[in-house]
Amino acid sequence: MDYPAEAAAALARIGASPPLVHQITNVVVTNDSANLTLGFGALPVMAYAPEEVAEMAALSQALVLNIGTLSAAEIEAMLLAGRAAGEAGVPIVLDPVGAGATRFRTESALRLLAELPITVLRGNRGEIGALVGSGAVRGVEAVGTEDPREVAEAAGARFGVTTAVTGPVDVVVGGGRTLLVRNGHPLLGRITGSGCMATAAIGIFLAAGDDPPVQTALALATYGLAAERAAVGDPGPGTFRARLLDEVAALGTTGTAEVRVTEG
Amino acid sequence: MDYPAEAAAALARIGASPPLVHQITNVVVTNDSANLTLGFGALPVMAYAPEEVAEMAALSQALVLNIGTLSAAEIEAMLLAGRAAGEAGVPIVLDPVGAGATRFRTESALRLLAELPITVLRGNRGEIGALVGSGAVRGVEAVGTEDPREVAEAAGARFGVTTAVTGPVDVVVGGGRTLLVRNGHPLLGRITGSGCMATAAIGIFLAAGDDPPVQTALALATYGLAAERAAVGDPGPGTFRARLLDEVAALGTTGTAEVRVTEG
Amino acid sequence: MDYPAEAAAALARIGASPPLVHQITNVVVTNDSANLTLGFGALPVMAYAPEEVAEMAALSQALVLNIGTLSAAEIEAMLLAGRAAGEAGVPIVLDPVGAGATRFRTESALRLLAELPITVLRGNRGEIGALVGSGAVRGVEAVGTEDPREVAEAAGARFGVTTAVTGPVDVVVGGGRTLLVRNGHPLLGRITGSGCMATAAIGIFLAAGDDPPVQTALALATYGLAAERAAVGDPGPGTFRARLLDEVAALGTTGTAEVRVTEG
Repeated sequence: MDYPAEAAAALARIGASPPLVHQITNVVVTNDSANLTLGFGALPVMAYAPEEVAEMAALSQALVLNIGTLSAAEIEAMLLAGRAAGEAGVPIVLDPVGAGATRFRTESALRLLAELPITVLRGNRGEIGALVGSGAVRGVEAVGTEDPREVAEAAGARFGVTTAVTGPVDVVVGGGRTLLVRNGHPLLGRITGSGCMATAAIGIFLAAGDDPPVQTALALATYGLAAERAAVGDPGPGTFRARLLDEVAALGTTGTAEVRVTEG
Repeated sequence: MDYPAEAAAALARIGASPPLVHQITNVVVTNDSANLTLGFGALPVMAYAPEEVAEMAALSQALVLNIGTLSAAEIEAMLLAGRAAGEAGVPIVLDPVGAGATRFRTESALRLLAELPITVLRGNRGEIGALVGSGAVRGVEAVGTEDPREVAEAAGARFGVTTAVTGPVDVVVGGGRTLLVRNGHPLLGRITGSGCMATAAIGIFLAAGDDPPVQTALALATYGLAAERAAVGDPGPGTFRARLLDEVAALGTTGTAEVRVTEG
Repeated sequence: MDYPAEAAAALARIGASPPLVHQITNVVVTNDSANLTLGFGALPVMAYAPEEVAEMAALSQALVLNIGTLSAAEIEAMLLAGRAAGEAGVPIVLDPVGAGATRFRTESALRLLAELPITVLRGNRGEIGALVGSGAVRGVEAVGTEDPREVAEAAGARFGVTTAVTGPVDVVVGGGRTLLVRNGHPLLGRITGSGCMATAAIGIFLAAGDDPPVQTALALATYGLAAERAAVGDPGPGTFRARLLDEVAALGTTGTAEVRVTEG
């Protein structure tokens, strides 16, 4: 598959018919995720109230669930939204932020995986590892030595969902395939919410194609490519953060030739 | 009326005696709205708890209510704050974000309009249209073909409040007049919360003058003018977002000569 | 004491063994505080749920409590987290944002001071003054004429905690000493959350040394020094905000020679 061309085609579809991406996400990254969604040409909507989440999710083209600043009430809202999304055929991406750091996070992520028809699970190797019993997490950072590919394969097998373990090389496992993404930049690790934004990007791309592992890899690759361009000249993290959004919004004109996805 | 001169005079009054602007707003735009308020020379305070909103609202010079990430509890807090504002003569601006997208949003906005002495209502043509039965909204974006002026006039007549429908040309209807604002830039549509920030700007200007339609038009015009200046050179949305705040804060020195308000 | 050298040593310790800094903070500054924490080389984690705050706090190297957008439930979560931190020997810094503006804020801050083993209290002279009965606050801004040193000494004596009153000159009182910090820039007053970020910086430094007044002064001095560098060329507040994060992240290479702390 010609991944750079597929990435360009997906971006063109998003721009031609902007998907509505319903996000129930954490308070740290809300603004960044909404701006990223607009940058990719899609329409973000953040909605959390139990009175409206099912209605909003069913109207959307993708649902993003992120437990970064979870509460018991928010998990219930996620369940309501996720069930409505499932009934309406809306793809769901789950980001189990901080799974492994506290029991509440691990158990909440496992509950969402058990009760909802999750399409894609994305996390770092510590978070995804924690969900299959092997990860180490401090706060929201992976600190163990798990092999990302083994972690992704274990989670994919256990939960039956496409799984993306992001890191220096992103590993996407699903549909009997493994895809490796070699885009990105270390500066992403210097800004908060860079993983959460990767998850939002996956949600956007799920709305633009039918093959979850491929769309996931394309999302991670284009987001990572924008980060590479934003990092030119080695800016500080504050400047990088603004430029990252600039480069995401420019992908339609700067192109996707450097997208690096391989079948592993 | 010499609108550019009135805009400069309003900014001077804000700077000379910074109004406290109490905002109960959504989690996407909180930081941006607070920074915008400081940029205009006013003092923001975000306070949501039922234990304090009435006290805070009564101490303020304007109250901004924005339902972008509403909850049932937050609507109750808005009612407490709004009643206290009304009793203290504090002007209130309401942003019915996403009205029309879900029943909960539409009904909550209508309830706030029914129970509180709202001074100004601001939204896009889809949101305001939804409140009078004609709008189309996807998430938080207008997608219909309503005429902004008809929508503003219908809402103004129905709710008895100054109504601003923002878009390529902003329409402000109130006090038997219609004002048209021709400032702004398409890049505002590329960043999240640009409408919410317009609403915050209206709150700030309501604290600096007694004529709600005029103050609303001045707020939209100066905010739009800052956006025009921030857009010079066609930056990406991340850079534009930072420059927008720079240009708002510079209005006192760069001036308001290009404010374009006409009586329609 | 050679404060510039101590600041450099503290930054080196943070970088060599990044502390996890658990923050229960307001929705305005969440993203900025997390980015600041990463900029200093530490690991932020925002966690608010009663189901997890004790576990997260006990795993952390510092706990930051900030009542800027408090709720009754959030104060309860702060009490749970603070007790767990106290039992685990984790230092706690409290930012009583807006104390004095409403009774709920003043009483909540006093309750946290009464029930938790707070290590450092930081606020402006109005907020800290309100806690000892002398301050004037509008929203979250100090508006009175209190003497910062008298306010800091009164609060330190009354609550038995290291107290930092920040302003043009920051005053830190604790352990029988008074330290004066002469770093910073007026542009900090033009962006929202600059005080909250100072509090987060204190939390980070408390994790890197055993002497609370000294670590507090070092935190305020390095943060203020980064602000001085970010302000070169007199940028607007939007650009300053991005550069501030750049300069914080660059402190390891640009150095701390201009740290200005004196014993008062």
